[in-house]
Amino acid sequence: MEHYKIIVAYDGSRYDGWQRQGNTDRTVQGRLESVLSRLDGQTVELRGAGRTDAGVHAKGQVADFFLRSSPSPAGVWDYLTRYLPEDIAVLSCETAPERFHSRLSAVGKRYVYRIWNSATPNVFERKYLTQWPDALEVNAMNEAASLLLGRHDFKAFCSNKKFKKSSVRTLTALRVERLGDEVRLTFEGDGFLYNMVRILTGTLVEVGMGERDPRSMPAILASLDRQNAGRTMPPQGLILDEVFYG
Amino acid sequence: MEHYKIIVAYDGSRYDGWQRQGNTDRTVQGRLESVLSRLDGQTVELRGAGRTDAGVHAKGQVADFFLRSSPSPAGVWDYLTRYLPEDIAVLSCETAPERFHSRLSAVGKRYVYRIWNSATPNVFERKYLTQWPDALEVNAMNEAASLLLGRHDFKAFCSNKKFKKSSVRTLTALRVERLGDEVRLTFEGDGFLYNMVRILTGTLVEVGMGERDPRSMPAILASLDRQNAGRTMPPQGLILDEVFYG
Repeated sequence: MEHYKIIVAYDGSRYDGWQRQGNTDRTVQGRLESVLSRLDGQTVELRGAGRTDAGVHAKGQVADFFLRSSPSPAGVWDYLTRYLPEDIAVLSCETAPERFHSRLSAVGKRYVYRIWNSATPNVFERKYLTQWPDALEVNAMNEAASLLLGRHDFKAFCSNKKFKKSSVRTLTALRVERLGDEVRLTFEGDGFLYNMVRILTGTLVEVGMGERDPRSMPAILASLDRQNAGRTMPPQGLILDEVFYG
Repeated sequence: MEHYKIIVAYDGSRYDGWQRQGNTDRTVQGRLESVLSRLDGQTVELRGAGRTDAGVHAKGQVADFFLRSSPSPAGVWDYLTRYLPEDIAVLSCETAPERFHSRLSAVGKRYVYRIWNSATPNVFERKYLTQWPDALEVNAMNEAASLLLGRHDFKAFCSNKKFKKSSVRTLTALRVERLGDEVRLTFEGDGFLYNMVRILTGTLVEVGMGERDPRSMPAILASLDRQNAGRTMPPQGLILDEVFYG
């Protein structure tokens, strides 16, 4: 029995998200598990660092699993690369310490949200960007972003109303940059609530359009009320960029 | 009657190339003409700067056409942007001098061929790159490229055997660059024969793998024989980048 850690990139457009559901063919986890189970001759279960929703992409999703046949990491990489569909790629495969757990061992994550801020569609990256034709004022967005940094209860930025556990998270970085016609938001933190990045982005977009005062962020946080935050942005601009371990 | 010039970007993956054939829905020209014909209430014919093959992309294809109803260029852009599919975008629309002709007025073109030189697939740009896992020696490719520059009969790099007209062309630039895992070839010239960029790229790739001597380029040119050049590379790495006018 050997323990493996892989870093996975995927174009989430065709999938019902990361997490396995009934139909294994429509989730990224299901696709990986079915190839690994074939390799190992038994049912292999994957532990992923984070669930991504339908249509969300990843450049650096992390997962770990055990294989009874203990092939070399290069052999696992080779087999996966041969049999995975072209929208899922394994960037690296290595053996992992027995106690390593993709989700529980993670100390943080980076997400990127990409907005194509132009009336002219971007044909080549259209699946990885959300098009937003209205002008966005990046300075105002960064002013608001600075007020969201740090340790807060982010309940107002979570769309799961039944969420019972603590919704306190620490946002260690939140940058808004303009790169030509693209506005790119980068989020780093110790954890993210359900839809948190997409709601934070939607709120900052409304700031960028002048519909919200950047200084209203503390009041939204304090309200703990989802109704006071902005819209949930579409999934296809969101990318799980990297998972951090200690 | 007004004359218009547009610059068009498209993801060629879904299309049988630029040039209209029987089924207008499967070519980029056909798609554009059908939207423009609806706008103008008559059959509109487009003149494109260059034909791109099935699966080839464009960032700067140029086309011109006449509209009886003479709408403003902004109105034409708006209508096209509203009704074109998401893999075709009009980057600009302006009125053109009566004698302007997208193909005949062009003095040159730039094509780019992108190779993903890694065993790990690139999931996000997979439709715009040709994956090539074998190591490529860029210095050798550039040495060969320098021997292809200038005015030559490129008959050996043309896959149309029945080509009756002159196959003399001037290649004004041919650069091979490594950008991380990508090897990018940039071609500029006064004109390109059928499959010329894909055959030149295939020949340079064979040089990069050490299968051909870079100094053999003059002999291939002199032979005027397609058999002596390298393979025709797949269409999906090829992009018509820009068309030049005087």
